[in-house]
Amino acid sequence: MTIKAVVFDAYGTLYDVQSVAAVTEETFPGYGEIITQVWRIKQLEYSWLRSLMRRYEDFSVLTRESLAYTLRILGLKYDDGVLTRLMEKYLHLDLYPDANAALAALKNRKLAILSNGSTDMLNALVRNSGLDRVLDATISIDSKRIFKPAPDAYVLIEEKLGVQPSDVLFVSSNPWDACGAKSFGLNVAWIERVTPEAMAQACVKSEMIAPLTMFKAIRMQMDELGVAPDYRIHALSELPGVVAAHGS
Amino acid sequence: MTIKAVVFDAYGTLYDVQSVAAVTEETFPGYGEIITQVWRIKQLEYSWLRSLMRRYEDFSVLTRESLAYTLRILGLKYDDGVLTRLMEKYLHLDLYPDANAALAALKNRKLAILSNGSTDMLNALVRNSGLDRVLDATISIDSKRIFKPAPDAYVLIEEKLGVQPSDVLFVSSNPWDACGAKSFGLNVAWIERVTPEAMAQACVKSEMIAPLTMFKAIRMQMDELGVAPDYRIHALSELPGVVAAHGS
Repeated sequence: MTIKAVVFDAYGTLYDVQSVAAVTEETFPGYGEIITQVWRIKQLEYSWLRSLMRRYEDFSVLTRESLAYTLRILGLKYDDGVLTRLMEKYLHLDLYPDANAALAALKNRKLAILSNGSTDMLNALVRNSGLDRVLDATISIDSKRIFKPAPDAYVLIEEKLGVQPSDVLFVSSNPWDACGAKSFGLNVAWIERVTPEAMAQACVKSEMIAPLTMFKAIRMQMDELGVAPDYRIHALSELPGVVAAHGS
Repeated sequence: MTIKAVVFDAYGTLYDVQSVAAVTEETFPGYGEIITQVWRIKQLEYSWLRSLMRRYEDFSVLTRESLAYTLRILGLKYDDGVLTRLMEKYLHLDLYPDANAALAALKNRKLAILSNGSTDMLNALVRNSGLDRVLDATISIDSKRIFKPAPDAYVLIEEKLGVQPSDVLFVSSNPWDACGAKSFGLNVAWIERVTPEAMAQACVKSEMIAPLTMFKAIRMQMDELGVAPDYRIHALSELPGVVAAHGS
């Protein structure tokens, strides 16, 4: 049994969603970090809630609505132009520094993205970052009208790449996504970018609870969902080793 | 068209989930409030994620798992005894002060709870608070094995009470629940216990962002989910007026 395809989550895994913080800080000085954290939490919540409510709208709609929500609860004034300018950053997210090297080292496997992002958002992002030259496919869950971690979303890998789940390594830094993929039947590598010890220390700094770190922590630490990924790595650079070792 | 049944969400609507803060503070001095906030966010996330993953476990399991997660990311030591003691509070939550009077004023309508809680949790909670003498039914989503806001959960009202959706007023303080119920087709009153202006002010106190208030805010302010409740009230005490006015 060998890995025939390596499939990546996009937001938070290959691309650093925290890189929107610079733009939000520029637009709302002093609020860049808190906007980024609340925006992301609400973007995810809305993807799950709309999936359950059967009111699917594509990820660009949810991303805009969650941003509007965030600015509203912070009491910040905004107009459509502000929303559009901040949204634009989602098409130009930074790749993690080790992404290109990891992808190059895996080029003898099929490589793809499977993301909650809409087809338009993903195509722009992949083109802007040059990954269109490396990936065999960029798969949006759009056609299924339900977001990860619903099984219907992960089915798309076999449908689009023709590789069965047991021959796929799925890579995500999002704990809920890693659990969803594992529950569906894929081999899963979860990227733990910060250790629990470092995170717990950062959450409680000198007797004070650090709010922004806490917001990050509740998205970055492995969840308790009754299922566990196969591999726990700390950076994309560890992936070639995992793929080489798997099943041998 | 008149309201034949008034159906309440339990946690956060009739019962104050914030009342666990006292017990968590007693057990982990200095951490009561942050544990309460993170615990609740994760409890909700796990209900949505497990529903989407089709890995249903009842709410008592999720409540325990989300508590374990919370203590872990805060770097706090705990054992099964601690989990059990904190969980126990969920069976003895405080009623909101105006709950009994509001229910009494509505006693000529069918009255029920529809909650994500497990049958056992809800029955104990309702008995301990004396609401078993007032309610016609306490409905858990257990039998559907999917949590609110999935439409299958709200179907239970008609199945158990024999009242069709257009004759039901559903009451929730949880924005996502109010939206889910409205999307399903119920009449909905959302309880906004804190105004947006007060919340925005509290979130940003003297140039500092108040972390715990922010955690509360992202659960208490109306969400952007493409649907809106019929009524926005500020306390349970306003309900009799809404019911009397509806459809007249």
